[in-house]
Amino acid sequence: MNVDRQQLGEAVAAGFADQLEWLATLVRFDSTRGNEAACQDWLAAEYAARGWQVDRYTLDEVAIEGLPGYSPVVDADYSRAVQVVATHQVPRPRGRSLILQGHIDVVPTGAPELWEHDPFEPRIVDGWMHGRGAADMKCGVSAMVFALDALRRLGYVPAATVHVETVSEEECTGNGALSTLVRGYRADAALIPESMGHKIIRAELGSVWFRLRILGQPGHVLAAAAPGAHAILAATDYIAALQQLTAQINVEARSHPHFGVVENPVKFNPGKIRGGDWLGSVPSWCELECRLSVLPGHSLPEVRARVAAAVAACADRLGTPVPALSWIGFQADGHVFGPGTEAEAVLARAHAAVLGGPLESVALTATSDTRFYDLYYGIPALCYGGHARGMHAPSEAVDLESLRRTTEVIAGFVADWCGLDPVG
Amino acid sequence: MNVDRQQLGEAVAAGFADQLEWLATLVRFDSTRGNEAACQDWLAAEYAARGWQVDRYTLDEVAIEGLPGYSPVVDADYSRAVQVVATHQVPRPRGRSLILQGHIDVVPTGAPELWEHDPFEPRIVDGWMHGRGAADMKCGVSAMVFALDALRRLGYVPAATVHVETVSEEECTGNGALSTLVRGYRADAALIPESMGHKIIRAELGSVWFRLRILGQPGHVLAAAAPGAHAILAATDYIAALQQLTAQINVEARSHPHFGVVENPVKFNPGKIRGGDWLGSVPSWCELECRLSVLPGHSLPEVRARVAAAVAACADRLGTPVPALSWIGFQADGHVFGPGTEAEAVLARAHAAVLGGPLESVALTATSDTRFYDLYYGIPALCYGGHARGMHAPSEAVDLESLRRTTEVIAGFVADWCGLDPVG
Repeated sequence: MNVDRQQLGEAVAAGFADQLEWLATLVRFDSTRGNEAACQDWLAAEYAARGWQVDRYTLDEVAIEGLPGYSPVVDADYSRAVQVVATHQVPRPRGRSLILQGHIDVVPTGAPELWEHDPFEPRIVDGWMHGRGAADMKCGVSAMVFALDALRRLGYVPAATVHVETVSEEECTGNGALSTLVRGYRADAALIPESMGHKIIRAELGSVWFRLRILGQPGHVLAAAAPGAHAILAATDYIAALQQLTAQINVEARSHPHFGVVENPVKFNPGKIRGGDWLGSVPSWCELECRLSVLPGHSLPEVRARVAAAVAACADRLGTPVPALSWIGFQADGHVFGPGTEAEAVLARAHAAVLGGPLESVALTATSDTRFYDLYYGIPALCYGGHARGMHAPSEAVDLESLRRTTEVIAGFVADWCGLDPVG
Repeated sequence: MNVDRQQLGEAVAAGFADQLEWLATLVRFDSTRGNEAACQDWLAAEYAARGWQVDRYTLDEVAIEGLPGYSPVVDADYSRAVQVVATHQVPRPRGRSLILQGHIDVVPTGAPELWEHDPFEPRIVDGWMHGRGAADMKCGVSAMVFALDALRRLGYVPAATVHVETVSEEECTGNGALSTLVRGYRADAALIPESMGHKIIRAELGSVWFRLRILGQPGHVLAAAAPGAHAILAATDYIAALQQLTAQINVEARSHPHFGVVENPVKFNPGKIRGGDWLGSVPSWCELECRLSVLPGHSLPEVRARVAAAVAACADRLGTPVPALSWIGFQADGHVFGPGTEAEAVLARAHAAVLGGPLESVALTATSDTRFYDLYYGIPALCYGGHARGMHAPSEAVDLESLRRTTEVIAGFVADWCGLDPVG
């Protein structure tokens, strides 16, 4: 059974006003880490209303610790980390099964002064929807759900099992995606509709998150402070040392088959700092939290060892004990998604039918959930979505016309990949 | 009526075991900012038991805001900031009245890893008592109270009004000391027994406390960050700019009549930092809190203007908006205590009687409460106490033999300054 492409486009367009309202509702949930439950419960009800079988669980219910791809957890309560897998099943599956996955966790809003509007009250301006999470990646979640809705509007459902998964932890560990696989959800392909500008990820960087606890040699500020005695000033030395390590890795990246074309693809971000507690005392402690990218081909133990060596060398220069170094989030491998899969070919056809032209690929300097499916579980995985801007910034926004097209592409992909049955 | 010096020494020695136990009790109170009440209530009872009239009040009861010497208050609840003034009165005062003042607020303990023992469980090792606040300055409080106890043991009380004052806020604003003066407590001299190594302060630096709220231009870490876009890295630029300002002021200090002999007397301490909230985002904010010394002769408005100019120039170099700059604690003038007062002469005699030799003076590169009495209220003020080490550090400790001698010096000073009456 085959769907008429033009009808499919019209069906997506017919549902698009509803989709935007649905997306706006989704953006209104402040689903920052630890606060995902209300958002997920609303989604679970949405999925159930579509006749899908809903598995709502929390991360503490799944034994993920220590598995490949697992990242350590700090400052999070996994008994509150709700994940939802909704499953469309057919009595006699004929086509290829599919995982559609999106994350609903969003990054914190940061300094409130930088927002011109409530981050969780979406605003549409000139065809773009603004709001925290609108682009990263609640728009993608709306696309995968409303793609299936559009097929149903035409009287079709996929002719194979489809798991619609909304996870959390994409922005810090990936443990949400991992949990779905450990819980047993598999398929012949996985598609994650991150906002990729209508391209697919060919390669992505991994990343490691770590914390240095730097101790000083405290005393009254009037005491002459030896190098390293002032924990906050020492932190600036560790930042410089890790910037130097990053520069060295970026030299190595110049010959990387996928990232050689990107200028300084490896980013070091000293993204969080807390130090000292009294202005009349030399600060005795400073906690510096950092993120460093990982090139495909660089192993995590190797990267961690280089970080530890840079830290130890800096401590040696300062003549102080080596700060405690802990790994506090992402321990994510870089990965290259091999071209030539059938899933990619099917997606390229769906893309061409809507946007015209070939499906281009990108080397992503960020980290997505996509690796879990391909790298650790052998499931061909695609990361593809539409145009967006201002990811993680107050200017975050999604291009709505592009979102409509993305929804249409996904609907076409599902139709081709899974095949279609008439609504039963 | 005159007291026999040797008898006085014996009376102090006779009470010294009790004094150490009393001091240990005082050290056991965690009287960091906001937690002074229990300590002050215990002291109020101690004072009442000695027959002194006790005025226990909180800072919110006294209209100090905006008065000379006042410092702005942040992150503190002045309805909990208990001050205690105990007054010894005689029916027919004959001698000169006196304020004995000590502060019971202590600085935070800092990183727990750096403490070998519970900071608030005092330990005596080789004649030194260790513990947070033991040296700064609960030992001094014990000296002023037990000096009066020693006189009473010999059958004497001061022949003039003596206010025994225990204040808080010495470590951040000085508003506790200010409040006693605004509340009306005055005397012919004031003595603050800070641990000064048996010297008196001739000159002291002031200090200003301020906070910069630095905003970035946040986004995903994969975005190329312009200079100043990364709020934490920008903070290191502001630190460097303020270090440069400090170096310039220290050049000017070389010709200062009191601080010219001190190498780099002016200290800049970026003592507290908080920035960023997510490692996957360019940090959008960083709050940097700093302390900068103020030379006597440099006005506070002038120093604040130089800080503001250095900050603005740095923002200009970074091409970013100027960070919000707020004044969040000490706005303390530097001050020179004129030599030649009668109070100093009397103290010098008491010092010589116990320790031998002349009373030396120091230029203190820290800030004490002493300025309030002399500078703003015209009360000759002395800051004198014994040996200590590790102020504000985990190694904080007071030399107990020196404390005994300090107690004896204070007793002798009170006897000479106030005169003595037989216990009534």
